[in-house]
Amino acid sequence: MIMWLFGETVKIGYNSFMKQSELFTKTLRHLPADEETINAQFLTRAGFVDKLMAGVYSYLPLGLLTLKKIEMIVREEMDAIGGQEILMPILHPAEIWKKTGAWTTVDVLFKIKSRTEKDYALGQSEEEVVTPLVMAYVDTYKDLPKAVYQIGWKFRDELRSKSGLLRGREFYMKDMYSFHVDQPDFDRFYDIVKKAYLKIFERIGLVAKVTEASGGTFSQKISYEFMVLTNAGEDNILYCDVCEFCVNEDIAKRKSGDVCPKCNQGKLSQAKASEVGNVFDLGQKYGKDFDLGFKDGNGKKQYPIMGCYGLGISRLMGVVVEKFHDEKGIIWPKAVTPVDLHLINIAKDRKIADKLYETLQTEGFSVLYDETSVSAGEKFANSDLIGIPTRVLVSDKTLKEDSVEIKARNSDKTQLVKIKELVKNLKQ
Amino acid sequence: MIMWLFGETVKIGYNSFMKQSELFTKTLRHLPADEETINAQFLTRAGFVDKLMAGVYSYLPLGLLTLKKIEMIVREEMDAIGGQEILMPILHPAEIWKKTGAWTTVDVLFKIKSRTEKDYALGQSEEEVVTPLVMAYVDTYKDLPKAVYQIGWKFRDELRSKSGLLRGREFYMKDMYSFHVDQPDFDRFYDIVKKAYLKIFERIGLVAKVTEASGGTFSQKISYEFMVLTNAGEDNILYCDVCEFCVNEDIAKRKSGDVCPKCNQGKLSQAKASEVGNVFDLGQKYGKDFDLGFKDGNGKKQYPIMGCYGLGISRLMGVVVEKFHDEKGIIWPKAVTPVDLHLINIAKDRKIADKLYETLQTEGFSVLYDETSVSAGEKFANSDLIGIPTRVLVSDKTLKEDSVEIKARNSDKTQLVKIKELVKNLKQ
Repeated sequence: MIMWLFGETVKIGYNSFMKQSELFTKTLRHLPADEETINAQFLTRAGFVDKLMAGVYSYLPLGLLTLKKIEMIVREEMDAIGGQEILMPILHPAEIWKKTGAWTTVDVLFKIKSRTEKDYALGQSEEEVVTPLVMAYVDTYKDLPKAVYQIGWKFRDELRSKSGLLRGREFYMKDMYSFHVDQPDFDRFYDIVKKAYLKIFERIGLVAKVTEASGGTFSQKISYEFMVLTNAGEDNILYCDVCEFCVNEDIAKRKSGDVCPKCNQGKLSQAKASEVGNVFDLGQKYGKDFDLGFKDGNGKKQYPIMGCYGLGISRLMGVVVEKFHDEKGIIWPKAVTPVDLHLINIAKDRKIADKLYETLQTEGFSVLYDETSVSAGEKFANSDLIGIPTRVLVSDKTLKEDSVEIKARNSDKTQLVKIKELVKNLKQ
Repeated sequence: MIMWLFGETVKIGYNSFMKQSELFTKTLRHLPADEETINAQFLTRAGFVDKLMAGVYSYLPLGLLTLKKIEMIVREEMDAIGGQEILMPILHPAEIWKKTGAWTTVDVLFKIKSRTEKDYALGQSEEEVVTPLVMAYVDTYKDLPKAVYQIGWKFRDELRSKSGLLRGREFYMKDMYSFHVDQPDFDRFYDIVKKAYLKIFERIGLVAKVTEASGGTFSQKISYEFMVLTNAGEDNILYCDVCEFCVNEDIAKRKSGDVCPKCNQGKLSQAKASEVGNVFDLGQKYGKDFDLGFKDGNGKKQYPIMGCYGLGISRLMGVVVEKFHDEKGIIWPKAVTPVDLHLINIAKDRKIADKLYETLQTEGFSVLYDETSVSAGEKFANSDLIGIPTRVLVSDKTLKEDSVEIKARNSDKTQLVKIKELVKNLKQ
């Protein structure tokens, strides 16, 4: 595979210190009337997203931070396996979609007519763009394999969109495309991507099942979906309680309670799940459709075997909330929390808390600082709703002991820590 | 203004070490047939962008790095003046555009009909989204002022698009929106934004003129455009050769050669220019259209004065190439170069160059490493075309002196530097 080395010099920094009084969003006390799912309810109430219409959301300051945290994890793992990052357009000329037949077969394709009567499509997957783009630089088998990916917005003309971030008409996605001389090389790379995907989900704190599914409109071959079990999910899967076998009910020839066809030991159980990633073996379809090939070792023209690897970044944000919450609000895993610490002052004199806010920044923590004048009870409720993993409380009571109180969002235990030992304690 | 503090904890790292043989793009020897402007010609030949159709480009690995460098500079300066970053949708319901009248008055608005016969628009500016979004959190004058911004893709149904990155049907833009209790507060903030804009252009190495222009479809008031003089620009301006007076010819009541109406000393000259930023005083239009106001000190309902501040990020990338190039290729300013160094090996034995590549990375430089087997002449030509500011050459001749040769892209002078002193020399 391409040995694109790790690099981190070009950094895009997002603001991650903020005083709560200055944040333009506020938490909402009541459930949004038109949201059915937990992810949309909590993310809206906590000020992470705002619905413009069904399946289309704005990402507000805290929501953007979490979205970018997930994006960064995905980028690191795609770079690590040799993916080269690019950005392909959203607006596509109709011709490329007509060439592959998808103009008429893909029902979720948004179509636009310009004022000069030209037809365009909005990108919902980008095989039609990436195939001519990459193959323009491929002459012989020596130029393969190649893998390019992008992170950006996709569009699907969904009939219904009622699952919050789990099914967007506009959604944030990583899509990678790979090009190979033959099937064994695709299989080799597919295995590498599968491991990278499982690592991404693990870093975020999720467990995903690798699920057999149909190839959809893209391919007649079997595809693989990465499924996270959640009742908010829109897929039904059958999985073995002993081995790793898992299949989408759409193509399953078995039912719940059957013996696992793989290990012959476990029993199959049904569950609802959300598809957070997928892999399609595209075969030679796109090379053939565009008649773009390469010369093999004998100088003979061949078409590349291509793979497509999707990963839903905004959907992952929704799935994380579905998996990590309680009745009070979100409980962000540390890997994707908008900021590290929620510093809360309820002491009469803000001076100590103000100073701590500065110190924690200097020490490399990202901090949301609640220095507002609402009641302690309201501050705690807001904090539980927003769901930052660690709360640092400054009160007159703790200050009497030269201390602050630390509490993890996922625990009821509180801990009194001397102020001068706070940084050391947090870094443990 | 909102005191949103600087933060840099959430970082999105882009790969910026790469071996040239592994980069999937290659430089093109010949001019692309259908590109008329220097920016599109060089950016295409050097492998920074690829045209999908007129006004719509893919950003390839090197191009994405430069785009993100510009984005980072813009983000830093918007954060520094208290802008809160969000991301608003691209796909908008028609209703919000009908409410403000723009559905029929904005001719460049892309319109879509879904398969359920719903009408959507593609965002080309986002007053229609941001006004209800921000005003939902504004109750009284105490909640103002507010400024939010986003960095993302915009769409315009242009009749023609022949200027490369200077006029996109799909383009990358920063748009900020501010909300104020009254005109003086808007004026105060406009001045802050103006200074931030001039700082951004200065950091990138550009000089922009603040130009009076018409308010367009948005407003009956005068607006301000930030213009960079370039023959590839699509605007004509008149500027004073003594003072800062500058006006778009569209609204100028004077002509080239006239005495400057501001200083009464200088003479007006005509020039072609590209609009890299703009400011619109939106007045109370959007607050009134959506009937969204706030309570003033007397509890009386008022509508906010709003401002809109655009800045074209992909256009800036094109303007930089128009301003900084010679007949051989691009000459990137250090602030927006895709990587710091172009390391080139033409020595028979690659070992020393390979080791330098590692060392330079460890020392914090981003590096493109040409370790390919093409001729020295071809490597130099590629390097001049790509335009990285500093070239580090390893040859058998330099190695005899335990040295490498350093050359700035914008100079003919070469300098022999001892390998052990290279890092120190580069950091000077």
